[in-house]
Amino acid sequence: MSEKVRVSILGATGYGGAGVASCLLCHPAAELVWAGSNTFAGRPLAEACPWLRGLTDLGCRPENPEEAAAEADVVFMAMQKGEAMGWAPAVLAMGKKVIDLSGDFRFRDPKVYEEWYGIAHASPELCAEAAYGLPELYEDEIRAARLVANTGCYPVGPILGLFPLLREGLVEPAGIIVDAKSGVSGAGRARHTLAYHFPETNENMTAYRVGSHQHTPEIEQALSLAAGQDIVLSFTPHLVPVTRGILATMYATAKAAADDCHRTLVAAYANSPFVRVLPEGECPSTKATFASNYCDLAVFADPRTGRVIVLSALDNLARGASTQAVQAMNIMLGLEQGLGLPVAPVFP
Amino acid sequence: MSEKVRVSILGATGYGGAGVASCLLCHPAAELVWAGSNTFAGRPLAEACPWLRGLTDLGCRPENPEEAAAEADVVFMAMQKGEAMGWAPAVLAMGKKVIDLSGDFRFRDPKVYEEWYGIAHASPELCAEAAYGLPELYEDEIRAARLVANTGCYPVGPILGLFPLLREGLVEPAGIIVDAKSGVSGAGRARHTLAYHFPETNENMTAYRVGSHQHTPEIEQALSLAAGQDIVLSFTPHLVPVTRGILATMYATAKAAADDCHRTLVAAYANSPFVRVLPEGECPSTKATFASNYCDLAVFADPRTGRVIVLSALDNLARGASTQAVQAMNIMLGLEQGLGLPVAPVFP
Amino acid sequence: MSEKVRVSILGATGYGGAGVASCLLCHPAAELVWAGSNTFAGRPLAEACPWLRGLTDLGCRPENPEEAAAEADVVFMAMQKGEAMGWAPAVLAMGKKVIDLSGDFRFRDPKVYEEWYGIAHASPELCAEAAYGLPELYEDEIRAARLVANTGCYPVGPILGLFPLLREGLVEPAGIIVDAKSGVSGAGRARHTLAYHFPETNENMTAYRVGSHQHTPEIEQALSLAAGQDIVLSFTPHLVPVTRGILATMYATAKAAADDCHRTLVAAYANSPFVRVLPEGECPSTKATFASNYCDLAVFADPRTGRVIVLSALDNLARGASTQAVQAMNIMLGLEQGLGLPVAPVFP
Amino acid sequence: MSEKVRVSILGATGYGGAGVASCLLCHPAAELVWAGSNTFAGRPLAEACPWLRGLTDLGCRPENPEEAAAEADVVFMAMQKGEAMGWAPAVLAMGKKVIDLSGDFRFRDPKVYEEWYGIAHASPELCAEAAYGLPELYEDEIRAARLVANTGCYPVGPILGLFPLLREGLVEPAGIIVDAKSGVSGAGRARHTLAYHFPETNENMTAYRVGSHQHTPEIEQALSLAAGQDIVLSFTPHLVPVTRGILATMYATAKAAADDCHRTLVAAYANSPFVRVLPEGECPSTKATFASNYCDLAVFADPRTGRVIVLSALDNLARGASTQAVQAMNIMLGLEQGLGLPVAPVFP
Repeated sequence: MSEKVRVSILGATGYGGAGVASCLLCHPAAELVWAGSNTFAGRPLAEACPWLRGLTDLGCRPENPEEAAAEADVVFMAMQKGEAMGWAPAVLAMGKKVIDLSGDFRFRDPKVYEEWYGIAHASPELCAEAAYGLPELYEDEIRAARLVANTGCYPVGPILGLFPLLREGLVEPAGIIVDAKSGVSGAGRARHTLAYHFPETNENMTAYRVGSHQHTPEIEQALSLAAGQDIVLSFTPHLVPVTRGILATMYATAKAAADDCHRTLVAAYANSPFVRVLPEGECPSTKATFASNYCDLAVFADPRTGRVIVLSALDNLARGASTQAVQAMNIMLGLEQGLGLPVAPVFP
Repeated sequence: MSEKVRVSILGATGYGGAGVASCLLCHPAAELVWAGSNTFAGRPLAEACPWLRGLTDLGCRPENPEEAAAEADVVFMAMQKGEAMGWAPAVLAMGKKVIDLSGDFRFRDPKVYEEWYGIAHASPELCAEAAYGLPELYEDEIRAARLVANTGCYPVGPILGLFPLLREGLVEPAGIIVDAKSGVSGAGRARHTLAYHFPETNENMTAYRVGSHQHTPEIEQALSLAAGQDIVLSFTPHLVPVTRGILATMYATAKAAADDCHRTLVAAYANSPFVRVLPEGECPSTKATFASNYCDLAVFADPRTGRVIVLSALDNLARGASTQAVQAMNIMLGLEQGLGLPVAPVFP
Repeated sequence: MSEKVRVSILGATGYGGAGVASCLLCHPAAELVWAGSNTFAGRPLAEACPWLRGLTDLGCRPENPEEAAAEADVVFMAMQKGEAMGWAPAVLAMGKKVIDLSGDFRFRDPKVYEEWYGIAHASPELCAEAAYGLPELYEDEIRAARLVANTGCYPVGPILGLFPLLREGLVEPAGIIVDAKSGVSGAGRARHTLAYHFPETNENMTAYRVGSHQHTPEIEQALSLAAGQDIVLSFTPHLVPVTRGILATMYATAKAAADDCHRTLVAAYANSPFVRVLPEGECPSTKATFASNYCDLAVFADPRTGRVIVLSALDNLARGASTQAVQAMNIMLGLEQGLGLPVAPVFP
Repeated sequence: MSEKVRVSILGATGYGGAGVASCLLCHPAAELVWAGSNTFAGRPLAEACPWLRGLTDLGCRPENPEEAAAEADVVFMAMQKGEAMGWAPAVLAMGKKVIDLSGDFRFRDPKVYEEWYGIAHASPELCAEAAYGLPELYEDEIRAARLVANTGCYPVGPILGLFPLLREGLVEPAGIIVDAKSGVSGAGRARHTLAYHFPETNENMTAYRVGSHQHTPEIEQALSLAAGQDIVLSFTPHLVPVTRGILATMYATAKAAADDCHRTLVAAYANSPFVRVLPEGECPSTKATFASNYCDLAVFADPRTGRVIVLSALDNLARGASTQAVQAMNIMLGLEQGLGLPVAPVFP
């Protein structure tokens, strides 16, 4: 045990932090040594997260980045927006690695953050340094990084699905639409408002934050790099009564045939064990990725309209948050990237 | 009771037919007198539909259009595709009115039907005669009709949402996208395949029939009339684990400001009791329409992309099938159009 | 309209109060004239309950029993426990009828209330006067009452299922067990805690308040009257991830054969339109009663153990709260008891 | 890889078999080498089970016990009832170990099987030999066995919960009631009938096979051993709209105080890593065991009625089927019993 990498989690009792904790409980080369939670400070982590009963004796500590860093080599920050940007500098100054699950360090340009998140950035100098934690596209940056900004849950599928097509010029950069459907756990564990009260959410569907969701510029930033020009797109998030899962449907004007697009996606992810490009004609389903790090992709042509339609499916809490963050940690540490991650999706 | 309009239902034990039956049980001016079901022939309707126990003593009869017509003034046909087109002529010849819930009579041009449904049309001469059963837009045609083609479940929201905007020239006719999310009851009661087996469907989301769903030309036909030119659009249906509800998200290139669009929708449906245009900034939710005849609409601008985004929510089995069909019957019979329909949506 | 009975609702925006409001919107002889809500005071009822948009222009008023009573002939109280017992006397003193949906007036003996609810009773003198609002068993008392205590949601099924068997001596009064499974809406609209947060509730089952639920003595009080002796039973409530529905499974020692029990239930409810005793061998399902006032009953013998097993299914918000309360109002007013109630359950 | 134990699965594409396959994909000491499926014979396992795409290249073979046995050291049989009893002898004769997930070998007395399953037993001589696959109670038998009968899904919780209390004489052997609530996956993957069609199952609850479920004698057989006398009990299964999970509520007459019972359960499972006895006063929830091998237990006193109430929660497909079967395999092979099993439950 003494040789394992030591890991702390700030925000350990939310869905993101607890998901990281679950991975670490299975991890052969890393171990959870410190868990922060203001709500549960002084009580066992397994009381805050009863499903972990029997798996950990760790107690929750008041959230404290210095203490977290003192105990560990790697610090995960799984807090509400605006916390990590204040805490990361001290942890980095102590020579520890940081993986942040919030949006605080996802933008090269802190002004974009400030515009979409409505908060002044406390550590703008770190924005350009942080690696964007999408391993299939930023593996080298992640490997070299002190600070990784885990992606938002929504951007993963659209970026993985559209990046290769834009890079290869198979679709038009202009006019892209991303219509995404998410499970309710995306709201987080703390946000148990009327909108997510079971009787109101069950058997319900709705859109929200139409045209103003903060994951819009995150998708645009990555895809602009792919296209080599500024991408402005429409992103509409929807709430669907499942616990886990994001299905994204992307519409783009075709510059190539569907099988070119399919071939390009297959080639792009030939060496990516956690991206599965489906056979032509099959649609991905979120359940086939449940509780796993997989992102499943498919591409269709719509010759009547000249469009390419790309579909992505993943688990918003796993690939969209905790398992991808652990994958990034593995890369940062020079480990095999799948360590500690679930192998087979849970089905049914 | 003897003065009530007499009604038969072919296909009375499916979700569509049983929904019509439920309305008729509450109807002050019409009564169900004949119920067809090959599966349950000879057994009580309340055995096939146990939720109706105590409400009807009617027995199920073998499906037989002549017998259905002989007993009644109005015949609902709620069969699989391809049945009604063979049965309607005889019923009409007996001087009875027909309301068909299948797709058989929804297209003026039988060739469109044949192309998308993959069946030769048995009664092409009736296609031009049939009224399209969307009361808010075709009330006069319905009132005058012998034969009404109830709409598909998916087209209702997109047509109601986009028709006024296209008619007034507030959005571009080219480039429209309809991304629709449906509950599982849209698959029907008979189709209990693995795809809709509870353990496989629950906590799952997927797209299906991308670019090839038969409701595509139905939406296009209506919107082309609105635009005064041929509309070709992308329509993507998705399956969401709710029983009832369709949420549609429509993307169009703006030619006017969002408040113009909102004003136009409000004006268009000022006298339509079953269409509710939401205040600006609110998103419709399917649950607010559950088990009712309401279609809720909202419109958003996305100034970054120059798009208008229209949202519609409704209950696919009620407004998307049975309650709208009864609304059409009321219009055909010169009755108040809300008779027999549920008043308040069921919530939560 | 001027001849309709005027009705006020205190607590109009909770699930119970809003359910009563929905019935009144369909009621031919009563109308909602006043709606109380501290949370939404000054705003439209249709803003607090968006599903009612287009159906009512009523605004919400601060909760005020005197004002509610001044406007109306009947006052529904759908508040948290402990409110109605303070408010009812003033309303009754104004000569108005009161139907309370809380537990405040369900016990003849206020000491039982105080023991199980943990509150001193503010109006103990009204406890003996209040009629228990279970129409099938207390119709005469309800008809004569100024004050009706609507039943708890859980007791309806067990009382309707066991009362006739105990009265006729077909089961032993000792040793009864009631194992009940409820949908989440039973928690109410205001109680959107972590326990009912969609991601935690979905795909989950649990028991709660084992041996201490306040509906226990309510069931015992009614069944003791049936048996002519004190009944002490085990009642275990469970939480199941559905919005609506209670299924109760009751175990009693048999003193007669199952078909005697079945015959007795059939006879007991022969004239009760809202109780359906299923054919022998069929199990009731909650969905067959969804959004209706039905309580479905079945009875089985377990000859290996000498037990009778009774099953009941109903909608906890309809028969377990609002529709039963409106049924009681109709009886109090000398109206046909089904006015304003839904006719057919919503299925699927 | 060559040193791994080789494993075949008959019935590899059902929920039980595919669950075993998923464990084997994570197993450090065993590997899946042969997968049977008549439906998918000749096609990849990952086509039959698309969630396994990317994890296995194995193809499905026609079901054939000899072929399965020829390829492997251990053969899992995950077929419909009645298959394994015909196939096991040949596999055993080839010197291979058999773990059967059906009910075929769960009864010492084949007459009990024949009575409750309605099938003549083809291998009655094996009934006494087979070890009952509940590791916490039969570890030695399993270790020594050639043939293990994995338990039914329902019996696990009631046996684990009541066995220690009966053995220690803390509850009466007579009068026990087991009221169990199961998710829908218990019906299996092949049984996609109308009863499990999503629209009919969702938002529904019902009981089934009241007094006649075949898991009744399985619970009785184990508990009779504990009590040292014949136990006859009432068992009522219920269907709840979740995919995974069984919650069982057990009622027994107390012969000791609740804290004695609690202490006894804690002691009984002190060395059982997959049984968690909750602190007094807490109720188990199925979600805290989701996709894991845990069985969570709690015990309550009901002093008003002199009863002890025991609660158990587990995942019917994991602990109730596949993960427990793999746990048994590990024991048979002398491996650490948790190899290949999920570590942390998936939450939320």
